[in-house]
Amino acid sequence: MIIRPFRETDGDALWRVIEPAIRAGETYALPRDMTRAAAVDYWCGRSHETFVAEDGDGGIVGTYYMRPNQKGGGAHVANCGYVTRPDAGGRGIARAMGEHSLNHAKARGFHAIQFNCVVSTNTRAVALWQRLEFQIVGTLPGAFEHPRHGFVDAYIMYRHL
Amino acid sequence: MIIRPFRETDGDALWRVIEPAIRAGETYALPRDMTRAAAVDYWCGRSHETFVAEDGDGGIVGTYYMRPNQKGGGAHVANCGYVTRPDAGGRGIARAMGEHSLNHAKARGFHAIQFNCVVSTNTRAVALWQRLEFQIVGTLPGAFEHPRHGFVDAYIMYRHL
Repeated sequence: MIIRPFRETDGDALWRVIEPAIRAGETYALPRDMTRAAAVDYWCGRSHETFVAEDGDGGIVGTYYMRPNQKGGGAHVANCGYVTRPDAGGRGIARAMGEHSLNHAKARGFHAIQFNCVVSTNTRAVALWQRLEFQIVGTLPGAFEHPRHGFVDAYIMYRHL
Repeated sequence: MIIRPFRETDGDALWRVIEPAIRAGETYALPRDMTRAAAVDYWCGRSHETFVAEDGDGGIVGTYYMRPNQKGGGAHVANCGYVTRPDAGGRGIARAMGEHSLNHAKARGFHAIQFNCVVSTNTRAVALWQRLEFQIVGTLPGAFEHPRHGFVDAYIMYRHL
C-alpha cells in the first residue's frame, strides 16, 4: 500500500470510499444525503490537502484530508478526516493513514492534530487514535445524532507533534 | 439597546466593531491581516445568522453570529461568535448578546451552543460565559498563538439549552 496525494482522476474511486460513510451517517458530521459533487468538493476543499491509500492493484482503499483547524492564531493546529473503504477494513489502512498524517503534519510545521467530533460509539476509531497517542481532551454531551443510537457524546481528541 | 438582524447597510458599522478584534488577534482565530471584504463575508456567511446590537443613538456597538457547529449529525449544536466595539465595553453588551443568542438558539431548535476556541487569556469572556452557565468541557493545550503571550491554551465551552 502506498499513500499519495489525491489527483483529479481519483474522483470516482474517492467517491466509492467516502460515499458509504456519508450515507451511513454514523461517524461523520456530514449530511447523509450529500451529493457526490458537494462531498468531493468538501473532502478536497481549497484549504485541504487530500491523500489516498492505494493498494497493490492500484485500487483506492482509503483517503484522508488535512487542513488547519482554525485560521489566524489557531492555524498551527491541523485537523484531519479519514475514511477506509468498507470492504478493505482490518488491513491496517486507517492506522497507516494515521501515521502518515502525523508525519505529514509535522513536516508541514503543524504543532498538533485535533479531531473536533469523534463519535463516541465509533469505538474502533477512538481506540486507534489512542494507540497513536491522541488524547480525549473534551467530551461534548449529546453532540452527535446517531441514526440508530440517537444523541450520543462526541470527543475532541488532540495530539502534540 | 436593541439586538436585531444584520442588514446589508450595516457593513461600515459592522466593520468598525469587528476590525479592532481581528487586527489585535488576541481573542479570535482569524488572520490579523484579513481584508474587510473577507471579514464581513465570514461574519455574515451563508450558513450564519448575524445580529447587531444597536444603542439608543442608532450606533452599532456589538455583533454576533450563529451557525450550526457541524453538519449532518452535528447540526443540532450551534456555534456563535461575539464582538463588542472597544469603546463600548463595560455596558453589558456582550452579556445581552449572549442572552439573546441563548434564546434565539433555543427558538431555532438547537439543543446546545458550543464555542470551539475560547482563548484562555480572554478571562473576561470566560467569566461571562461561565455566568451564563457555559462549562469548559475541554482544554486544547497551546492551541492559540497569542501575539503577546505566545502559545496559550484554548477552551471548548458548551451549554445545553
